[in-house]
Amino acid sequence: MEVFAVPGLPEFEPGDDLAAAIEAQVDLRPDDVVCVASTVVSKVEDRRQPLARFEPTERARSIAERLASITGSTKDPRFAQAVLEESTSLVLDAPFLLAVTRFGHVGVNAGIDRSNTGGQGVLLLPEAPSESAARIRAGLSESPGVIVTDTSGRPFRTGQRGVAIGWDGVPVGRDWRGERDRDGTELAVTVENVADELAAAANLVSGEGAGGKPVVVVRDFEFGDHGTTEQLFRDRETDYVRQALEAWE
Amino acid sequence: MEVFAVPGLPEFEPGDDLAAAIEAQVDLRPDDVVCVASTVVSKVEDRRQPLARFEPTERARSIAERLASITGSTKDPRFAQAVLEESTSLVLDAPFLLAVTRFGHVGVNAGIDRSNTGGQGVLLLPEAPSESAARIRAGLSESPGVIVTDTSGRPFRTGQRGVAIGWDGVPVGRDWRGERDRDGTELAVTVENVADELAAAANLVSGEGAGGKPVVVVRDFEFGDHGTTEQLFRDRETDYVRQALEAWE
Ligand SMILES: Nc1nc2c(ncn2[C@@H]2O[C@H](COP(=O)(O)OP(=O)(O)O)[C@@H](O)[C@H]2O)c(=O)[nH]1
Ligand SMILES: Nc1nc2c(ncn2[C@@H]2O[C@H](COP(=O)(O)OP(=O)(O)O)[C@@H](O)[C@H]2O)c(=O)[nH]1
Ligand SMILES: [Mn+2]
Ligand SMILES: [Mn+2]
Ligand SMILES: [Mn+2]
Ligand SMILES: [Mn+2]
Repeated sequence: MEVFAVPGLPEFEPGDDLAAAIEAQVDLRPDDVVCVASTVVSKVEDRRQPLARFEPTERARSIAERLASITGSTKDPRFAQAVLEESTSLVLDAPFLLAVTRFGHVGVNAGIDRSNTGGQGVLLLPEAPSESAARIRAGLSESPGVIVTDTSGRPFRTGQRGVAIGWDGVPVGRDWRGERDRDGTELAVTVENVADELAAAANLVSGEGAGGKPVVVVRDFEFGDHGTTEQLFRDRETDYVRQALEAWE
Repeated sequence: MEVFAVPGLPEFEPGDDLAAAIEAQVDLRPDDVVCVASTVVSKVEDRRQPLARFEPTERARSIAERLASITGSTKDPRFAQAVLEESTSLVLDAPFLLAVTRFGHVGVNAGIDRSNTGGQGVLLLPEAPSESAARIRAGLSESPGVIVTDTSGRPFRTGQRGVAIGWDGVPVGRDWRGERDRDGTELAVTVENVADELAAAANLVSGEGAGGKPVVVVRDFEFGDHGTTEQLFRDRETDYVRQALEAWE
């Protein structure tokens, strides 16, 4: 399996055609997986917004005040408002904002970025990253799989890593249910989230800085003869961690 | 960057020399990262144990009974005992066992596996996976980086993915602190956990089944000119999710 960045991509602007920009730089194959950093998807989808666009409600003000009193540094109520507008609910409102985005992803600050935003304001995640992935894929002549990625943190483990937030033409999960291990015992691991693993692999090449490598191709990944799954985010009902956090004072 | 499985590895037995087995099959380079599935590390370290070896305490019995009453299927108190013996504490004791292993990893059932265990009993994680990584590395003439991996689940997102549980000769984190994005703004993402990203990439090639690919080489990964970090597991004090779970009824 090979993992390489698409070279020579420009700074992206609203309305730019990502698929065309990719295709101009690389000869894709039908079984490639093209991983696209959400930052550039957001840029072309005009998701960069000045903070002034967010009129804080009472709730946003009180969240920002509480966060400021806990963390000891000022918090912009307009930023809290942006998080609220991007979310269907908050899993935590302190000591940081952990939000469920409108498309189901649980992320700190609803994944709103202040880096690589083009100098000012905030960069919201794409509104519907799997639809973005489908649009990009439709513009690529060989119809490879497309994953929209982001970088995010998680409990228990330090640091951040690449994750998938949208996908098209590639399954989320490799389903091992019913298969047997080397001794004939049924497998304990049931579903492997290959979309997240592909996003993590891509992030090793993209990095987080000024490197200018927002698109990474994974070539010759062998999915193998397995079932597939198409759900990326857990249901609240079976997510005990989410329930515990929501109940936490 | 290239990611490939070491071919032709045998079924491993207690006492086998993993490094020698790897070296017999592949010409490694100093800047390779060799990812080794914990399953085979455990096998050579004789961590396969019959369940009868675990004498359930009162606590293990009551945990197993409570789990059985919640899930509706019987739970072996000896298995609960194995989890307790492998852990320093439980983050959750229901509706499943989420444990902090002796080396600091938070995992369901303390990462104890029933698959690929050689037919019976349980397979415990290596006692000190970073020491295992260092031993394997010491046996490899080119001294590549070594990561011991496992497959594990996580909150919020479906399925399981490869993670690092031990490492040697490769940093855990790529530290972006102080660096600037494409617009000169200081980066929001501070530390990228490349050990976990490498483990995830390796897992795409290893898979979870009978494929016999426990060792994966990542070649030509460019770490770049960045700071490094050496902590894989969060401190409890700054892990709010862990604290919320511990406080959950
Ligand atoms: N060529 C190009 N690269 C960009 C642009 N914006 C961001 N990048 C690069 O894309 C990669 C990922 O950026 P990051 O901000 O971490 O994106 P995120 O992980 O989706 O939040 C890095 O290599 C950035 O330098 C852009 O407009 N053009
Ligand atoms: N050659 C060989 N492969 C093994 C052995 N045990 C497990 N594997 C393979 O190692 C890979 C990872 O196995 P898995 O049980 O998922 O390990 P874990 O992720 O560390 O728990 C799979 O490709 C297995 O088929 C062994 O003793 N020899
Ligand atoms: Mn981002
Ligand atoms: Mn990133
Ligand atoms: Mn395992
Ligand atoms: Mn595995």
